Amino acid sequence: MQENSFTIQTNSGLYTDMYELAMAEAYFKEKKQDEHACFDYFFRKIPYGGGYVIFCGLGELLPVIEALHFNSDEIDWLHKQGFDKEFLSWLEAFRFKGTIRSMQEGEIVFPLEPLLEVEGGLAEVQIIETLLLNYLNFQSLIATKAARIRYAAGNRHLSEFGLRRAQGLGGISASRAAIAGGFDSTSNMFAAKKYDIKAVGTMAHSFIQSQQDELTAFRKFAEAEPHNCTLLVDTYDTLKSGIPNAIKVAKEMKEKGQHLQAIRLDSGDLAYLSKRGRKMLDDAGFQDVHIIVSNQLDEYLIKSLLEQKAPIDSFGVGTSLATGQPDAALDGVYKLCEISGEPKIKLSENIQKVTLPGRKQVYRFIDETNCFVADAIAMEHGPVPDKMIHPFDVEKSKDLDIKGAEPLLKKIMTDGKPLLKNPAPKDVAAYVQERMQQLPDEHKRFNNPHIYKVGISAPLHQLRSDLRKKYKM
Amino acid sequence: MQENSFTIQTNSGLYTDMYELAMAEAYFKEKKQDEHACFDYFFRKIPYGGGYVIFCGLGELLPVIEALHFNSDEIDWLHKQGFDKEFLSWLEAFRFKGTIRSMQEGEIVFPLEPLLEVEGGLAEVQIIETLLLNYLNFQSLIATKAARIRYAAGNRHLSEFGLRRAQGLGGISASRAAIAGGFDSTSNMFAAKKYDIKAVGTMAHSFIQSQQDELTAFRKFAEAEPHNCTLLVDTYDTLKSGIPNAIKVAKEMKEKGQHLQAIRLDSGDLAYLSKRGRKMLDDAGFQDVHIIVSNQLDEYLIKSLLEQKAPIDSFGVGTSLATGQPDAALDGVYKLCEISGEPKIKLSENIQKVTLPGRKQVYRFIDETNCFVADAIAMEHGPVPDKMIHPFDVEKSKDLDIKGAEPLLKKIMTDGKPLLKNPAPKDVAAYVQERMQQLPDEHKRFNNPHIYKVGISAPLHQLRSDLRKKYKM
Repeated sequence: MQENSFTIQTNSGLYTDMYELAMAEAYFKEKKQDEHACFDYFFRKIPYGGGYVIFCGLGELLPVIEALHFNSDEIDWLHKQGFDKEFLSWLEAFRFKGTIRSMQEGEIVFPLEPLLEVEGGLAEVQIIETLLLNYLNFQSLIATKAARIRYAAGNRHLSEFGLRRAQGLGGISASRAAIAGGFDSTSNMFAAKKYDIKAVGTMAHSFIQSQQDELTAFRKFAEAEPHNCTLLVDTYDTLKSGIPNAIKVAKEMKEKGQHLQAIRLDSGDLAYLSKRGRKMLDDAGFQDVHIIVSNQLDEYLIKSLLEQKAPIDSFGVGTSLATGQPDAALDGVYKLCEISGEPKIKLSENIQKVTLPGRKQVYRFIDETNCFVADAIAMEHGPVPDKMIHPFDVEKSKDLDIKGAEPLLKKIMTDGKPLLKNPAPKDVAAYVQERMQQLPDEHKRFNNPHIYKVGISAPLHQLRSDLRKKYKM
Repeated sequence: MQENSFTIQTNSGLYTDMYELAMAEAYFKEKKQDEHACFDYFFRKIPYGGGYVIFCGLGELLPVIEALHFNSDEIDWLHKQGFDKEFLSWLEAFRFKGTIRSMQEGEIVFPLEPLLEVEGGLAEVQIIETLLLNYLNFQSLIATKAARIRYAAGNRHLSEFGLRRAQGLGGISASRAAIAGGFDSTSNMFAAKKYDIKAVGTMAHSFIQSQQDELTAFRKFAEAEPHNCTLLVDTYDTLKSGIPNAIKVAKEMKEKGQHLQAIRLDSGDLAYLSKRGRKMLDDAGFQDVHIIVSNQLDEYLIKSLLEQKAPIDSFGVGTSLATGQPDAALDGVYKLCEISGEPKIKLSENIQKVTLPGRKQVYRFIDETNCFVADAIAMEHGPVPDKMIHPFDVEKSKDLDIKGAEPLLKKIMTDGKPLLKNPAPKDVAAYVQERMQQLPDEHKRFNNPHIYKVGISAPLHQLRSDLRKKYKM
């Protein structure tokens, strides 16, 4: 396939903000481009008023960072933008050669803790900032939404239906993150092929409308798709027409040795209609025909439907999942924490916005029942902390049992080469489900979830204090 | 450039929901794939509680539809998904050959009115549904947000800074739509090159932190970027350190015949700091150094800053613009309105969700002062209506002066070939601004905007009534 105006190369070096390149140029002119620097990735606010975030996007990000480069056409364009020729020669040869330590993709994570640290030459670690934030912020947002919906839905089937309302091409990685967070399948064919996800699809109202009547439409669809036949029953009148016609077709299929897989409800009161529909199907002997519902669903509606004992086997979730409504973005940032071995801090009037200096490690403390208790952020090379301090209210502290400490940041890229493969979304999902088992339920509830404790070690607290004094107060 | 795992072909036929292909297969098996059908694109709810939507994404969509196809690798994959060989032979030769009538990209549009109608063979018009919705829903969402921000900002410079929080690759088309809606520039280099948009960028806090002190950092940046020098003044203390140091550097630049372009504020109280900063700059003789602000801005914050007379020259807007917060999606849908010359309707218990049958035209009525008065949806080939009926409260009607009627739907694609070029985003922006002049201010305000009148013609009302009776009540 030839490159053309429809080709997007995701490893283009231009997938960045201009200021990253302006800073890189300034470093280059000072001959500081290779000065050793370390940046943290962390977020401050959990979306959806929730109790946790699922860290997602890493597996797809690493190969992009490895392959990131500027082609000659891009270099020419940058020259027209006013970038200097000498800098552009350097940029044309640019490949990321840094080191990344990170939490595992699918980890359950909390505000303030570094999820990933990037080390390398000052220019290279700066150049990848925008790209890294774009991948991790978005996929973590969507995986978190998916995990919340999975929590509401129990073990029922969950399909992602969001492409039509997704944010442009963002719909592709939305499907990946939805599976990582706990969904079973997607309607998005592009994503299904790219990520080896189970693809699902039924019919739209237009299929029914395009035929002379609903029963004919159902028969034609059953003839065409006997192995994958779900009938949409709400085009005209769900209870008077849609379900009775679906039952007729189910009987006809049965006579041919075929099986109607499901009916789908896409409007009306889904609790009421699913109960009535279940009874009608059961009374006709079709206990094995499933009920799929869709229509502006989210974790709250699914929870409510199941509390009402709606006999639903499968949910299709579109807009709220693929766009992360109502939050639309995770506020992850990428901040300098060390340069040439010197820890660095970004000050703010507000202690909540002061960054944590130096290279760090995050320890998760796990109790004898295998549940998460607390996370402590410590210096990378210090001892495992046996006490942690509240990050903002520094007179509060908590003792820790170091026997249960698990370090979460591990080296995953050296000299620009990933040390692990890009996992399939379902492998990320397996880890998410394993870790969700370890997270107490009080952090999972939707209303005012219990805040998971994240603290800082005494040496990190001391370092932050010293640097705050040094730079300002 | 070779195709590789980083290549995304936006004209891939797989950029669709599975059910579109399942329906196409069912049509094919019935030999109904070429039956003539027409679909409408319209939305129901204006995002942001606003009074209008900017129709955007069309220029980029049409070439994609024209070039849409399934390559042999995709056909093989579809075969593994269970699609039939004969259908796949048809799909392998598939090219869209239909006709599209549409409003102009950049048109100001309102709920319920068809913004675009697609005609062609039943299978082909179904296959492009997801793609079409994905492009138009997202770009219209973002262009609308951008137009609201432009309305708040008057003629001040507006830059889009959203890539780091954008929804994955959706950040690319977000930049296009931001410019179409009224922004001047973007930080997104990929989008700047792709769409010929002005790229802008300054520096991050990390640049300041990476140097021994703030003054040194400013000097180094001014040396490296003398023609494009904006200094970020809030890393340590905006008023005590950042602005005084920026003034020092501005003086040094002046001595060399150079010019400090701007200072940027990215935290704190932007109204207070911009006023104090302006005074400090003016007192030092730097009336021509601009003030740029950023930090979680949206149309409400910008309006408030300007009401407080904050002397700001330029706003950088990121997350809220690039993701359309707080709404994240436009609810546009694509509904069958005609098949084989027969008008079709989708019923609902709720009249607001009953579709408008048949092929239609939208007339905009413009008064003698060149302002928009109302839009009437009529049958495509009927007379221009001199009266319109409220679409839901059908006892209400309004007389119209047909002298001012402007038909909005025009043919833009025939036999799968676009009749117009993909416009540059700034050309779309010029049309948006022209049309915004014609929209009365009461529809532009942010709080409870006046609802723009959209009605239906008497023949269309009659047809909808007849079909509702025929199919149900």
